Amino acid sequence: MGQMTIKDVARRAGVSFQTVSLVLNHPEKVARTTRETIEAAMRDLEFVPSLAARSLRKKPSRSIACVFSVGARADASGLMQEADQGGLLQAFAYVTDQHGYTLVHRRWCSDDPDSVGRITSLVSEARVDGLVLFAERRDDPLIAMLQAKRFPFVIFGLDTPGAHFAMRAERDAVYEAVRYLARTGSRAISFLEGKRDGRRMRTVAERFRGYREALAEAGLPLRDDLVVPCDWTSESGHRATLRLLDGPVRPDAIVAADDRVAFGVLKALHDRGIRVPEAIRVVGFDNSIQSAYTIPSLTSIEVPTLEMVRFAFATLVEVIEGTRAPDDLAQRHFPTRLVVRESTGSDGRAQLS
Amino acid sequence: MGQMTIKDVARRAGVSFQTVSLVLNHPEKVARTTRETIEAAMRDLEFVPSLAARSLRKKPSRSIACVFSVGARADASGLMQEADQGGLLQAFAYVTDQHGYTLVHRRWCSDDPDSVGRITSLVSEARVDGLVLFAERRDDPLIAMLQAKRFPFVIFGLDTPGAHFAMRAERDAVYEAVRYLARTGSRAISFLEGKRDGRRMRTVAERFRGYREALAEAGLPLRDDLVVPCDWTSESGHRATLRLLDGPVRPDAIVAADDRVAFGVLKALHDRGIRVPEAIRVVGFDNSIQSAYTIPSLTSIEVPTLEMVRFAFATLVEVIEGTRAPDDLAQRHFPTRLVVRESTGSDGRAQLS
Repeated sequence: MGQMTIKDVARRAGVSFQTVSLVLNHPEKVARTTRETIEAAMRDLEFVPSLAARSLRKKPSRSIACVFSVGARADASGLMQEADQGGLLQAFAYVTDQHGYTLVHRRWCSDDPDSVGRITSLVSEARVDGLVLFAERRDDPLIAMLQAKRFPFVIFGLDTPGAHFAMRAERDAVYEAVRYLARTGSRAISFLEGKRDGRRMRTVAERFRGYREALAEAGLPLRDDLVVPCDWTSESGHRATLRLLDGPVRPDAIVAADDRVAFGVLKALHDRGIRVPEAIRVVGFDNSIQSAYTIPSLTSIEVPTLEMVRFAFATLVEVIEGTRAPDDLAQRHFPTRLVVRESTGSDGRAQLS
Repeated sequence: MGQMTIKDVARRAGVSFQTVSLVLNHPEKVARTTRETIEAAMRDLEFVPSLAARSLRKKPSRSIACVFSVGARADASGLMQEADQGGLLQAFAYVTDQHGYTLVHRRWCSDDPDSVGRITSLVSEARVDGLVLFAERRDDPLIAMLQAKRFPFVIFGLDTPGAHFAMRAERDAVYEAVRYLARTGSRAISFLEGKRDGRRMRTVAERFRGYREALAEAGLPLRDDLVVPCDWTSESGHRATLRLLDGPVRPDAIVAADDRVAFGVLKALHDRGIRVPEAIRVVGFDNSIQSAYTIPSLTSIEVPTLEMVRFAFATLVEVIEGTRAPDDLAQRHFPTRLVVRESTGSDGRAQLS
């Protein structure tokens, strides 16, 4: 039998879970007979209030934090390049606001003692009721710290065992894009691998798996020369493309780490006088609004961001309010969708020279 | 004699302003002789502690809020288009984090009673020590509310009499761009006016003034047909450009409301087979990272965002800590810089047909 929640107690006692919550937090406000019924149900079910439910005895802050792991990048460099988080933050601000929650925004840099202290105090002083962690690595020390403190949290963007998470189906996304390219005639498909601080992140490893499996299925060889590292900037996409073009194997398609990287790819190809999609086809990732306005417009992978944000927030609230048992993990991979535009040729390889 | 600050008191008493603050907030922690010296200095200077300083008697939250006025747009439509706030938020998160402050992020919609209530409680419960308001209109009701409550706030992006603010020099920015275009040969310069909810915002009115004055100085007529409304999206820039091309006066240059609008302009010109910069030159606004990677790359107006954020935050902290007198307004217009790229022809009109 898994750990009981206040919903189980409520069902057994024939009351609403809000009443159970009230007994836990403000027993003096509940009629004695009702209270006794609920307390009996708790005993019968061997109910142990979670840390989160108990923390409700303190006045809840009705605040949640969005914490962005920025790795070793504690300085302002690359700050504006983190603007991709902007859409995500706006979505979280919208959803939290709709539900009467306040959104706290934090950067987390595990290498910076000040940053560690500030996150720790946010958690231990319970100035927020829970947090959404934008982690890049499963071994992010913040995850272990939150688990040790049994503090309510949900991870956004990374599948982490033992934690609630919302993640894009990264492997499937790239698998689908590469399969599409192969089926419509591409034979030398390059993959621009996103890196951070020189490491391949887990999400990127998942994408690489999709790339490798789609190539294998299409009977195409995996060529090291076509897998090129890049970071998450247009500049890096530009540079990686020039490197590819000067390399031993000429690609006929490029799958970029995200749309901004793809913008740099398109620019580099244009600078070299190489026609897209006729000579090289290009696929982005994220389906940013801009992708419809590049020249040519960019085929990209659409991510259901608002749906992911709603799921992460709803899960966090369930954990905070104690209506989800700690061992009842909410873990979801969200499917993406390939949006085909001019950069891959809307009528497939017919356009190829 | 203007209102005295705790800095004036500190100078007179020969102590640090932190000690004065301590006397105001935790007098029991200050040695009696020191306290008496400071209290004498306060009497001499007829010092009245500001509301902000007095509120320090409550434990400060060490939190500030970024509040975005979203007008009537309370729904999720256009949410992703607000991603331009992403860079700003990242910059605020970075600067507040550096100083040990927590950043709270709020949307504010004056038409939504829930939204009003949530902002009011944020302020009256002092859950933040102060706020930065991203206002679009001087008559935003939140401004009057904050002033009435004497709650510490700074306005970002709009010059508002009687309030602290950081604003881009909007008039000068467009004046400089249009003057550059006129001096290098453009004769029919179109201005794509950003609107919100169909209204011309004050910032846009300032830009229009720059446009008008630069045209007048160059001896060029102001033609209504060349002033086209748009909102702040690429789609809108695309549509406005098609409308311009089908209109009575053919432009030879277009100044867009921002870079995203300019991306739509470039796309529409490309769709119609019109060469940039040979036939029509294009200028964006914001100098976003992407502007270097459009085809052709985009001439744009660079805004010192991080500097503005630092100024707004530093001002807010001074007001919160009582080291800036309420009538000592911090109001600054930040100069911008035109960054010339391919879309206006790096060698001027020599390239024009």
